[in-house]
Amino acid sequence: MKCTRCKKEAVMKLKRHNSSFCPECFDIFFSRQVEQAIKKNRMFSREETVLLGVSGGKDSMSLWFYLQKAGYKVQAVHFDLGMGEYSLRSREIVESFSEKHQLPFEIIEVKSLIKYSIPEITQKVRNRPPCSVCGMIKRHLLNRYAWDNHFSVYATGHNLDDEAATLLGNILHWQDSYLAHQSPVLPSPHPKMVRKVKPFYTLTEEEIHWYAKLHDIPFIEERCPLSKRAKSFQYKEALDFLEEKSPGTKHMFLLGFLERRDRYFASSQETVKLSECSRCGMPTTLEVCSFCRLMERLNFQRERRKKSNAGYGS
Amino acid sequence: MKCTRCKKEAVMKLKRHNSSFCPECFDIFFSRQVEQAIKKNRMFSREETVLLGVSGGKDSMSLWFYLQKAGYKVQAVHFDLGMGEYSLRSREIVESFSEKHQLPFEIIEVKSLIKYSIPEITQKVRNRPPCSVCGMIKRHLLNRYAWDNHFSVYATGHNLDDEAATLLGNILHWQDSYLAHQSPVLPSPHPKMVRKVKPFYTLTEEEIHWYAKLHDIPFIEERCPLSKRAKSFQYKEALDFLEEKSPGTKHMFLLGFLERRDRYFASSQETVKLSECSRCGMPTTLEVCSFCRLMERLNFQRERRKKSNAGYGS
Repeated sequence: MKCTRCKKEAVMKLKRHNSSFCPECFDIFFSRQVEQAIKKNRMFSREETVLLGVSGGKDSMSLWFYLQKAGYKVQAVHFDLGMGEYSLRSREIVESFSEKHQLPFEIIEVKSLIKYSIPEITQKVRNRPPCSVCGMIKRHLLNRYAWDNHFSVYATGHNLDDEAATLLGNILHWQDSYLAHQSPVLPSPHPKMVRKVKPFYTLTEEEIHWYAKLHDIPFIEERCPLSKRAKSFQYKEALDFLEEKSPGTKHMFLLGFLERRDRYFASSQETVKLSECSRCGMPTTLEVCSFCRLMERLNFQRERRKKSNAGYGS
Repeated sequence: MKCTRCKKEAVMKLKRHNSSFCPECFDIFFSRQVEQAIKKNRMFSREETVLLGVSGGKDSMSLWFYLQKAGYKVQAVHFDLGMGEYSLRSREIVESFSEKHQLPFEIIEVKSLIKYSIPEITQKVRNRPPCSVCGMIKRHLLNRYAWDNHFSVYATGHNLDDEAATLLGNILHWQDSYLAHQSPVLPSPHPKMVRKVKPFYTLTEEEIHWYAKLHDIPFIEERCPLSKRAKSFQYKEALDFLEEKSPGTKHMFLLGFLERRDRYFASSQETVKLSECSRCGMPTTLEVCSFCRLMERLNFQRERRKKSNAGYGS
């Protein structure tokens, strides 16, 4: 197998691009994809400092590596979710990588910040899937961190597979307002809501996996133990099956959607009025934001339990 | 397992409706689905005679049985595609069913009509998948038959699985004009283009299979031998996988789309001007319709072969 660009020995085959690459040319391909994504969508400039949430997974670790190598200003933050061995291992990976490359980052322990670890919360909230609760908390905390620390933009490692799976779920259930909003750049609709960007949205999981291996980027290989029954994995599995039969399916699906989104789905864009949460002051459509409502519910349960235990004792 | 309606012993479970049915109540459920589909979409009245293409498969055989039992006027036509054992067996099924229930029908041998059988054609047309060529020919012949014999409407046995798979293919590749048109009723856009309807579009393959078994309706179980690599089967397989995990997915996907089609996709509806084919006189957007172009190509190849054989002999 020869490299499509330079004719040296190729080490990887990209069916969807009908190309094979040697390590050097794969690196060029990879950079071009990310640079085009950043430029075309005006994600950020080399002057801005981008806040990056690093979980320890291949996507955020590769994005961290890429952005600093390409000369962007990045500040990483890692949320320790308090998920036992899984969180310990994730944290170690982030720490050792930061040390090796001398990249600063901050660790935020979710439990120290909000009194509960993620498993403690998801165990109590039985009416919502764990990934949905955890995602809401992480989005809230990351946005709050970005706002408190004066960042104008934060980036996540979402890739083509993630975005295509989300799109498939939204289309199968015709989630109109989600369809109107799905984008690699979510602009800031309120001064306290920081711009969110996804520089890897045109790269597949497999390609990012190769990139991480090629650059010796450490990452946690296991899936999050709470995500085992996540719907997004089912959509990914269905899309993987179709991609295997017709390489390029995911790419066409997501990029074709993004071209058409405003024409087709803008009519579903509700004119949402964002006000500030009466508890935390962050933007919300309600009087109290979903994060604060969750916290109040958990605190209320805790108080009730305390009282009831005191009652038994008396 | 008890019947959700009458509490007698149930024989089948419909996960997507969270119901179980005994044979009698399943029959009521089935009829209601078809009657609602016919009425809501104004497919046809009991006064019109509906032309029905019967292939010998479970869908068209069940539709034939249902429509005559429910008191509709139906005229069936079977196209013998000339596909060896598979066509012989399909034809026998249609013939014996017609005899048993004393239902008139007509057989049209594709080869007698257009000089070539379907396998002879698909072997020669290498640049298009067999199902696409065969589908185009059947649509042309069925419409021509309907027009020549003064039918105002013809029905096919397409079910929820077929329609959801077509929709998934059209969405994954963003086939805009197909999305604008996909419907259980295709109105007549030209006097010579007969209205097409799909009364089974809300019923799954499994439900129609049960209906056929329940009423002892004979049908050919094998897939068409030319359709082995058809893309529609891949889309069905992906949707089956998702339906298994979340019953009701296909239903929500298709019915949600139909509710939104005009709002979202009508803008992609090209204002197509239909004229009459200069060869056969049937409606087309081109000077010569795709059916006649195919026939001319096949006839041209045949003439060339004849001449070249004559040349070798001389």
